[in-house]
Amino acid sequence: MNTLYALIMAGGGGTRLWPESRVAFPKQFINLFKERSLIQIAYERIIPLIPPERVLIVTGQQYAEMAQEQLPELPAENIIAEPAGRNTAPAIGLGAIHLHRRDPAAVMAVLTADHMMRQEETFRAALAAAHQVAQDGRIVTLGITPAGPETGYGYIERGDRLDPLAGADGHVLFQVGRFREKPDRATAEQFVSSGRFYWNSGMFIWQVATVLAEIARQLPDLYAALMELQAVLDTPQEAEVTGRVWPAVRPVSIDYGVMENARNVVVLPVDPGWNDVGSWNAVYQESRRNSLSLPPDGNIVQGGELLTIDTQGCLIRSKKLVTTVGLRDLVIVDTDDALFICPLNRVQEAKTVVNRLKQSGQEAYL
Amino acid sequence: MNTLYALIMAGGGGTRLWPESRVAFPKQFINLFKERSLIQIAYERIIPLIPPERVLIVTGQQYAEMAQEQLPELPAENIIAEPAGRNTAPAIGLGAIHLHRRDPAAVMAVLTADHMMRQEETFRAALAAAHQVAQDGRIVTLGITPAGPETGYGYIERGDRLDPLAGADGHVLFQVGRFREKPDRATAEQFVSSGRFYWNSGMFIWQVATVLAEIARQLPDLYAALMELQAVLDTPQEAEVTGRVWPAVRPVSIDYGVMENARNVVVLPVDPGWNDVGSWNAVYQESRRNSLSLPPDGNIVQGGELLTIDTQGCLIRSKKLVTTVGLRDLVIVDTDDALFICPLNRVQEAKTVVNRLKQSGQEAYL
Repeated sequence: MNTLYALIMAGGGGTRLWPESRVAFPKQFINLFKERSLIQIAYERIIPLIPPERVLIVTGQQYAEMAQEQLPELPAENIIAEPAGRNTAPAIGLGAIHLHRRDPAAVMAVLTADHMMRQEETFRAALAAAHQVAQDGRIVTLGITPAGPETGYGYIERGDRLDPLAGADGHVLFQVGRFREKPDRATAEQFVSSGRFYWNSGMFIWQVATVLAEIARQLPDLYAALMELQAVLDTPQEAEVTGRVWPAVRPVSIDYGVMENARNVVVLPVDPGWNDVGSWNAVYQESRRNSLSLPPDGNIVQGGELLTIDTQGCLIRSKKLVTTVGLRDLVIVDTDDALFICPLNRVQEAKTVVNRLKQSGQEAYL
Repeated sequence: MNTLYALIMAGGGGTRLWPESRVAFPKQFINLFKERSLIQIAYERIIPLIPPERVLIVTGQQYAEMAQEQLPELPAENIIAEPAGRNTAPAIGLGAIHLHRRDPAAVMAVLTADHMMRQEETFRAALAAAHQVAQDGRIVTLGITPAGPETGYGYIERGDRLDPLAGADGHVLFQVGRFREKPDRATAEQFVSSGRFYWNSGMFIWQVATVLAEIARQLPDLYAALMELQAVLDTPQEAEVTGRVWPAVRPVSIDYGVMENARNVVVLPVDPGWNDVGSWNAVYQESRRNSLSLPPDGNIVQGGELLTIDTQGCLIRSKKLVTTVGLRDLVIVDTDDALFICPLNRVQEAKTVVNRLKQSGQEAYL
């Protein structure tokens, strides 16, 4: 059977978790839960299924060292540094050529670095089933059973149900009807009530040969660039060729560039207790779920020490003593150079703060 | 005419301005307004009337260096260090013996280090008048025209009006009827509506010989201790005698120990726009009054930089970038080791925070 590898996408970003998440220290490297960063949690989640030597990370050049520090057991050659961010299709293509060189028959699971899953066993079982399904050239996407009509995710509409597949271990699979971009609220509600839609998790399982064939067919320019790079991997020319080829690569997402028109795509529904930790409110909710002994006031403190008087439902991150009187449902994030205080139901506005800082040229805070 | 000296009382305290005000760095040394500390403001306020060589500061031994740093033009010998706090009567007695040695005919204005006054000219004119009135042995207290029925101050009830005094420069004076301790709300309202009560400002103007005579009569133990100290001032024995005598001095306030039963006390009403800056709300209100161009959202920022979205009526002190969303009427005080967030109408509870820290033995934060 073709061997399963993981490619963890750790490209950067996360302005909605400002001021912790910064350009120089993005979301996936921050300790948000249990003194572990999201990338450490993502890594440890798959290790029971895929050993470290078969786990690859693709990340920005500026984060390669950080990734190695946080994942010391990961072989250094498994960290693939992008010279510049070009969105997901080029990043996956870059991972694919590295993997193809190592094992042309590899099955590659594209995974995300910045999600939490409460049912890790469920997730690994789905991944193992997808590994089986991908053996015959199918492209498997993991579709998350929606917990609500979220407007922040893309959705996958399912088509016909497949006949039970050998090795799928009881998992039900469907043809993919259509990929749908982030919907408005009303549309999202229709999606969820129909029972035929899943959140697009951004996780795909496919043979590396299949990915490269789809890129060759749909994104020939990217394919040409990847082939040029592949020819010089691990040679003295690699740096020079990369420096010349990569800047010219056109940014495009894997969803838009490949998946929407890919052949032979199936969706494997899974409900692993998924949380994309896309905002401070998501961090708060996830922390509450993780707390074995949640205090009755519902305050979550990360880092420092907390002394509260009549304070409820707050998420507080600081290295200091934080003392509060009469507060409700706020997030308080105190970093070395910035303090952010916001109601949990308005945390999306962290993005507005970041945009304003950008507009006024305060680069140091980005 | 007997010469006027100032004795600025800078003993310490101010837990309601925690976490800025600390045992090691109390309220009067903090920059609360215009990048000046309260003691600097108190000093600069009287300099047009009393030159630096006639201004004395009495403060705790541990604060003497701080006082000298903040008041570099003050002669070093004018800083009188108390070996330990013994409340106001001993502190004033200590100032009195120093002053008596320098000028037995001195008139001493006992002033506070931690109040703001918006009408400094009005204050200095009252002080000059009190200086005149004290020439004949009277004790003058400055009574502040109450701005409202405050329960946090003592009050002075006026008695008969004095005949116009030569040199009082048009100021009206009254006999003192009675000193009243901090009243409850209903009593305070009666006081204010009667028009016969003033806030006890803690400021007194008297001849140094008069103070010492009253201490001799009413607090003979304190007087004996002071005389023992006076005999060795500026001799090699001073440190040894102070170290032995001072710890045995009984703490007592000047109001209770001297003023309530003093002879020949008059009250000089004055309305200098007085603010005792006794809480973060008082700091906020005073800052608003001082602001030449108050922003329409009513936010006051001291120290750092502020970026707000839908935030109104907040007082923010920090060295950092502070970013807020959707906040109303809060004080946010961010120091190196502690963060305090509280509605402006509950700032009295800073004291509760300090008490809790004390109870749990967290001395470092006091």
